Order: sequence, then C-alpha cells, then structure tokens
Amino acid sequence: MAGRTFVDKSECARHNIFPGVDVYTAAGESMMLSLAELEAEAVVERHSHPHEQVGMVVEGHARFIVGDEERVLGPGDMYFIPGGVPHRVVALEDGCRALDIFHPVREDYL
Amino acid sequence: MAGRTFVDKSECARHNIFPGVDVYTAAGESMMLSLAELEAEAVVERHSHPHEQVGMVVEGHARFIVGDEERVLGPGDMYFIPGGVPHRVVALEDGCRALDIFHPVREDYL
Repeated sequence: MAGRTFVDKSECARHNIFPGVDVYTAAGESMMLSLAELEAEAVVERHSHPHEQVGMVVEGHARFIVGDEERVLGPGDMYFIPGGVPHRVVALEDGCRALDIFHPVREDYL
Repeated sequence: MAGRTFVDKSECARHNIFPGVDVYTAAGESMMLSLAELEAEAVVERHSHPHEQVGMVVEGHARFIVGDEERVLGPGDMYFIPGGVPHRVVALEDGCRALDIFHPVREDYL
C-alpha cells in the first residue's frame, strides 16, 4: 500500500477482525489509516498493541473503554490511545464507523 | 492537549489557517488529529512541512493537488502526503470536511 498518494476504499486491504467488525487499511510511511466499520452492537474485544492509536468517529456511536476510562463517542469525537494501553469498543444500536490511525504502521493490517 | 483520552470538537484548539478554512486540533504522543473544515471553494494554498500527513475526507468534496498528482476526493477517500511534499486543496461547491493526521505533532497547531 505504501507509496500511493490517493487511495479509495476499494483499494484498501480489508480484514474482518471480529464478528461484525471490518477494517479497511492503507499505509503511509510511518502511519496507517484504518477505516473501521462496526455493525450494531459489534464488539472489538479488549486488546492492546505497542502502536500508538488515535482516531475519530465518523458515523454512528460506540462505547470506548480505554484503560480505566469509558465514554460513548459520536461523530467528530476523537480518542487517543497510547501504545500498550488495553482498549475495547462496543458499537451502539446504530453501528459505528471510525477512522483509526496507527503509528508505526501495523504490519498485520497490510 | 496531550494526555487526554477523549476529546470533543469544543475541546480542540481552533486555528483559522486560510480564508474559509478552520482546523480543530488535538495532539497525542506522536500524532496530531486535525479536523479541517473548508467552506465552499475555500483554498488551502500550496505549502509543505516536514511532517508526514495522512487523512480522509469525511464530508463534501475537494480537489487535492499533491506534488504533481491531482484528484477530486469525496467521503471515505484517503490521501498520503510524505513530509516535504508541496500540496494544495480546493474545496468544491459543497465544501469539505477532512480529518488530517500529522506525525510528528505540529507544534504550531497546539
């Protein structure tokens, strides 16, 4: 993926990471974009990774649990997850689309 | 801004960077989120910076000129701008909202 200037969703790598959770990814030099689509009530189970993760909800709503903090986020709300901090996401009834960004690039999502 | 887990738009720093172009920013450890709102036909003039910049259009449309490549992008379309590459953005008639991410953090947008 690296090296391209413009990437549409059909050109992204797609990974089904949990039931009802698909991510569409593309990598830059040191950051990776990952558009996450969660069906209603879909769950990204608690996990962690060494990569820093930041992002913004684009559509719908989800409950984000990051370390010991918890909040329901909607369109335009941003989140910041330092590397190594466990996090879990539960989509509400309207589902959720969020843009995640990882640094460095997640090789497992290429 | 750094150190917070959840940030809504009202908590972001706001900068008017060109006529009709506002950015709402918040910083993580090594990345900065910047929600850019362009009024119809607003222009981000050609510029460059050492930071790598990636992003996705959230709403509306804009013409992106990156180096010698040019494309009109709409919702869900991603772009990847290596550090030092000149770029220019022109919103179409429907205006444009895009989420930019910078690495490292842009100190001038704190």
